[in-house]
Amino acid sequence: MVRWEPDSRGRLEQAALALFGELGFEDTTVAAIAERAGVTERTFFRHFADKREVLFGGGTSFQDTIVAGVQAAGPDRSPLEAVAAGFAAAGALLEGRREFALARSAIIAANPGLQERELIKLASIAAAVGESLRERGVGEPDADLVAELGVAAFRVAFSQWVATADAPPLPELIDEAFGRMAALAR
Amino acid sequence: MVRWEPDSRGRLEQAALALFGELGFEDTTVAAIAERAGVTERTFFRHFADKREVLFGGGTSFQDTIVAGVQAAGPDRSPLEAVAAGFAAAGALLEGRREFALARSAIIAANPGLQERELIKLASIAAAVGESLRERGVGEPDADLVAELGVAAFRVAFSQWVATADAPPLPELIDEAFGRMAALAR
Repeated sequence: MVRWEPDSRGRLEQAALALFGELGFEDTTVAAIAERAGVTERTFFRHFADKREVLFGGGTSFQDTIVAGVQAAGPDRSPLEAVAAGFAAAGALLEGRREFALARSAIIAANPGLQERELIKLASIAAAVGESLRERGVGEPDADLVAELGVAAFRVAFSQWVATADAPPLPELIDEAFGRMAALAR
Repeated sequence: MVRWEPDSRGRLEQAALALFGELGFEDTTVAAIAERAGVTERTFFRHFADKREVLFGGGTSFQDTIVAGVQAAGPDRSPLEAVAAGFAAAGALLEGRREFALARSAIIAANPGLQERELIKLASIAAAVGESLRERGVGEPDADLVAELGVAAFRVAFSQWVATADAPPLPELIDEAFGRMAALAR
């Protein structure tokens, strides 16, 4: 019965998000996700460790994109500019998956346990960004302050992005948030 | 056997923190806390709903202090100055309970579940500060940006405060963090 399934990962993601929305995250089983996607449970587990990983599996590449963006910023860039560049790069990544990101965000907002997980993800991103600033020679507490500031700007931009159907592109909102933050901090 | 116990709440706090440190949070029972404090379990439950509340019961007054500080700031103060005043007031509150705050912080750092709870507390503070800024007439996204910025400055100041035995007073570190943040945002 097992056969090659084109983009089974993508179909599993879609099926999972649809079911999380219909039944709630807690009441959705891996069996139901696999069935909806038309694949076996075994195929599900080839792609994801558990159903939560459908929502959080992209976290590592998201964080890596931010850190790579910070590292790629020229040495003449200020710490805040480097962090803004990192988050803008990650924003472009999300912009390309807007439908998935919106559905994911709605499911997380409906589940306190997933919200906690999301907060931990953001705290881990702040720590990684702080580390990449220290590698650029930024001292303490500046590295941590700018990292936290970056996460704060990203959070606000992200909420604007998911709040309305006709929101501007996320990288643009992130740029604006960093700009507003600089103005407000003066 | 039940008799009036002077400051049973304070002794329960001390007993709980000591046991959390010795046995770990998970392996500490309410019975053991009450015994160490020399009171009955019934007395424990007159003060706390459960053992977690020993660590998080002060969260409401902490948040209220920040919000009251924001509200008390004169109308000529910028949003960031108002938020800095709120966090400095809360910093003074913690400074007066440094021993408790340090022990609490070490226990939370050792337990992922408690760390999640702490992150949620900070997210709730950011939301409350954002709301108090909107009441001051600050628009969006500025209110949320400044609120997040305030939490970020507080987090960094707090880690400095708990990192070394001879750290400067917390309100001073908070002031410095807000000042550094303003400089870094330029």
